[in-house]
Amino acid sequence: MDIHALTRELNVKNDSKIVLLVADGLGGLPLAPGGKTELETARKPNLDALAKIGVQGGSIPVCPGISPGSGPGHLGLFGYDPIQYLIGRGALEATGIGFQMEPGDVAARGNFCTLDAAGKISDRRAGRIPSEESAPLAIRLREVKIPGYEIFVEPVKEHRFVVVFRGAGLAGAVKDTDPQATGVAPLLADATDGGSRKMADLANQWIAAATKLLAGEKKANGLTLRGFAARPKLPSYEEVYGLKAAAIAVYPMYKGLARLVGMEIVGKAQTLADQMDVLEANWKKYDFFFIHFKYTDSTGEDGNFDAKVKKIEELDSAVPRITALKPKVLIVTGDHSTPSYLKSHSWHPVPTLLVSDCCRPDGHATFGENTTVRGGLGQFEAKYLMTLALANAGRLAKYGA
Amino acid sequence: MDIHALTRELNVKNDSKIVLLVADGLGGLPLAPGGKTELETARKPNLDALAKIGVQGGSIPVCPGISPGSGPGHLGLFGYDPIQYLIGRGALEATGIGFQMEPGDVAARGNFCTLDAAGKISDRRAGRIPSEESAPLAIRLREVKIPGYEIFVEPVKEHRFVVVFRGAGLAGAVKDTDPQATGVAPLLADATDGGSRKMADLANQWIAAATKLLAGEKKANGLTLRGFAARPKLPSYEEVYGLKAAAIAVYPMYKGLARLVGMEIVGKAQTLADQMDVLEANWKKYDFFFIHFKYTDSTGEDGNFDAKVKKIEELDSAVPRITALKPKVLIVTGDHSTPSYLKSHSWHPVPTLLVSDCCRPDGHATFGENTTVRGGLGQFEAKYLMTLALANAGRLAKYGA
Repeated sequence: MDIHALTRELNVKNDSKIVLLVADGLGGLPLAPGGKTELETARKPNLDALAKIGVQGGSIPVCPGISPGSGPGHLGLFGYDPIQYLIGRGALEATGIGFQMEPGDVAARGNFCTLDAAGKISDRRAGRIPSEESAPLAIRLREVKIPGYEIFVEPVKEHRFVVVFRGAGLAGAVKDTDPQATGVAPLLADATDGGSRKMADLANQWIAAATKLLAGEKKANGLTLRGFAARPKLPSYEEVYGLKAAAIAVYPMYKGLARLVGMEIVGKAQTLADQMDVLEANWKKYDFFFIHFKYTDSTGEDGNFDAKVKKIEELDSAVPRITALKPKVLIVTGDHSTPSYLKSHSWHPVPTLLVSDCCRPDGHATFGENTTVRGGLGQFEAKYLMTLALANAGRLAKYGA
Repeated sequence: MDIHALTRELNVKNDSKIVLLVADGLGGLPLAPGGKTELETARKPNLDALAKIGVQGGSIPVCPGISPGSGPGHLGLFGYDPIQYLIGRGALEATGIGFQMEPGDVAARGNFCTLDAAGKISDRRAGRIPSEESAPLAIRLREVKIPGYEIFVEPVKEHRFVVVFRGAGLAGAVKDTDPQATGVAPLLADATDGGSRKMADLANQWIAAATKLLAGEKKANGLTLRGFAARPKLPSYEEVYGLKAAAIAVYPMYKGLARLVGMEIVGKAQTLADQMDVLEANWKKYDFFFIHFKYTDSTGEDGNFDAKVKKIEELDSAVPRITALKPKVLIVTGDHSTPSYLKSHSWHPVPTLLVSDCCRPDGHATFGENTTVRGGLGQFEAKYLMTLALANAGRLAKYGA
C-alpha cells in the first residue's frame, strides 16, 4: 500500500504544530535478564510525566529482525517505506558529510589504495592512511577536469573520500571498481543497465586521470570507487503531508537526510540547548519540527551503558522547553535501537511515545521498553508514525464516505 | 497478500454459526487523561462476562492513523481490504438510501443548484432547498427518458439526490459536473478513460433534458452531478468464505453494504429487540449473521459521552439473547472508533472481543480500550477478523502439508 497516496488525498491544513524528537538509537537492552534497559534506568521525570498523558508503543524500523542504518531508520520515521525508498551508499556518504546532492547527481564512495609496480592492488586501504595525509590528496583530485561535467571530491576519513559527478544523462547503476582483493588491478567501472553507460565511461575517464595525478604517492597511489548512487527521488514533506517542515540537527548526516525529504535546515545548533533555542525562534514559521539528538546512539555504539543513561537524562531535561511551546502533537522516539550491550544498531522495537489531546492514553506512568510492550500503540512499522502524527494533529480527513 | 485466495482454498463446510455484532463507532476516548472511555464507563455485565471467556484486541480499520468512513470501515470488518476495494461516492450514496445497484449500474450524487439568466451557477446548493420541496423535483426528474437505458432518480435530503444509470457499456470514470464555484456554468460530464465515454455522453443528454424540465423553478432550476461510480465488484461471502450470510440492520446504508458482499437482508427490524427477534427467527437458515447497531456512532458524533455510554449499556442487555443461541463464534466490535471527545470517526483501534471454545482467553475481566491493549488478539488490521472468525468456527483447513 502506498501510504502517501492516502496522506495526499486526505490532507487537511490547519495551524497545528508537530514535534518529532528523535533520540538516535534510543532503544536498549538490559545487561542481564531481569535488569533494566538504559531508558528504564534513566531518571527522566519529564518523559515519565508525558507517559502519563500519552500513548506508547514499539516502532519497528523496517520489519522484525532487521537492524537499519541511519538512512532507512530515518526514512521510516519520516514515513517513507525504507524498503521502497533506497538511499544508495554513495548518496548516503555524500549526504553524511553535508554535500547537497542535486537531482541527477551520482555519488560514489572512494578508497585510496596502494598499487604495486604492475598496477595491482597491494593494500586496499592505502595502509589506512591518516586523514591529515589523505585529505590534501582528495582535495588535489579536484584538479581533474572533464569537459561537460562538474566533479566534486570531498575528503571523508582516513582512506575514504566521496566523489560526486554532475551533468546530463548520468545514472547510478554502475558496479564497484574495488575488486575486494589484493594482487589484482582495480576493475573498470561497468554499467549494469544501458542508462548508466555514460556514468561508467565518465568514471573510467576520471579514475584514469586521478590515478595519473596520484602516481608519485607512496601509499595512496591508486583509488577505487564503490556504491555508485544517484540522489534518491523522494517526494517532499510539503507534497505528501502538506507540512512545512524544519530540521534541527547538529550532525551533517541528519541534516542531509532531512533535506532529502524537503525539510528546511534551520539554525546552526551545536548543543541540545542550542537546538531548543532554534526551535523557539522558528516556532511560528513551520508546521513540523524534526529534532535530532545523536548521543544516545554514539554512547550505545561505544557500549557505554552509564553514558547512554546520562544522555537520556540530558535529553529529558530539554523536554520542558518543548512542551512549553504546546505542540499539538509531540513524539519521542528513535530511528532504531542501539543497545550498549550490543555496541551496534539493532532490530529491537524502538520505544515511542506520542502525546496529543486525543491520543488515547494507555495508563502507563513511565516510558521504557517494557511499558511500550503493553502500550496503546502496540508494535507498528515506523512508516506509520507520520500517519499517526497527522491524525493526532487533525490533519487527515476521513477515508471514504 | 490476497487473503481471499487463502480462505477460498482452505474452505471447510460445517454447521457452525458465526455472529458479528457491530457497534458502529464503538471505540472512544476518555474526556481527560486518566479517565475512562465510554466503553470503560458503561455498566455492561454481559460483555464483561464474555471478556472472561474470550480474547480481545484492537482492530485497525485501514492502517494506523487513517479514519474510515462507513464504507471502508465495514468492508474491512467483512474481510475485504479497504484500500483494494473502493466504493465510489455515488455508489455509496445510492447504497446508503437503500437503492439496490446491479452489476454494470453507475450512480452519481446530484445537487440541485440555482442558475442565473445566463445559465451560470448563482447558488451551488439551491439555497439548501428543504427536502419537502426538493423531493418532488427529484421524483419529477424520473420523467426524463433516454432510449436504451433505465434511469433512476431518488431524493436524498435538501439539495441532494441520487441518479443511477443502467444499460450496456456504462462505466464510472467520469468527472464531476460541479465546478465547485459560482458565476460559471456547470461543466459537461467528461470521461477520464475511453471506456467511460458512453456514460459521459448519457449523463450530458440526461442533464440537458433534466435542466429543461426544471426551467420554471425559482431556486432549483439546475443541477450538477458528482462522484460517478459503478457498483463495486466484490466477491460474495458465499464465494470467498463459503458462508450463507444474513444481515440484520436497521439503516439502509448497512443493509446496502452487506448486500454488496452478497449477504441477504433479513427482517425489517426497527429496534435492537426486533433485531434479536429476527436473529432467532433466522438462526437455522444461515451460517453467518451481521448485526448492526448504529447508535454508538451517532451518540459519539453528537459528542454526547453519557448517551454513548447508555447505548453501550443497551447493547449489552441484548447480548444474552445472542449467547442463548450458542453461536460457535461471537465477535463484538465496531467498524471504527467515534470518540464523543472528537465528535467524529477516528483512527483509534477498535475494541474487539472474540468468543469461541477455542479462542485462547487472555484473562481479562472487562472489555475496554485499555484491556484490548493487553489483549490476546493484539492489534490487527480489521481485514483479518473474518479469517479469525472462520478459524475459530473450524471452517479453515490447514495451509500446506
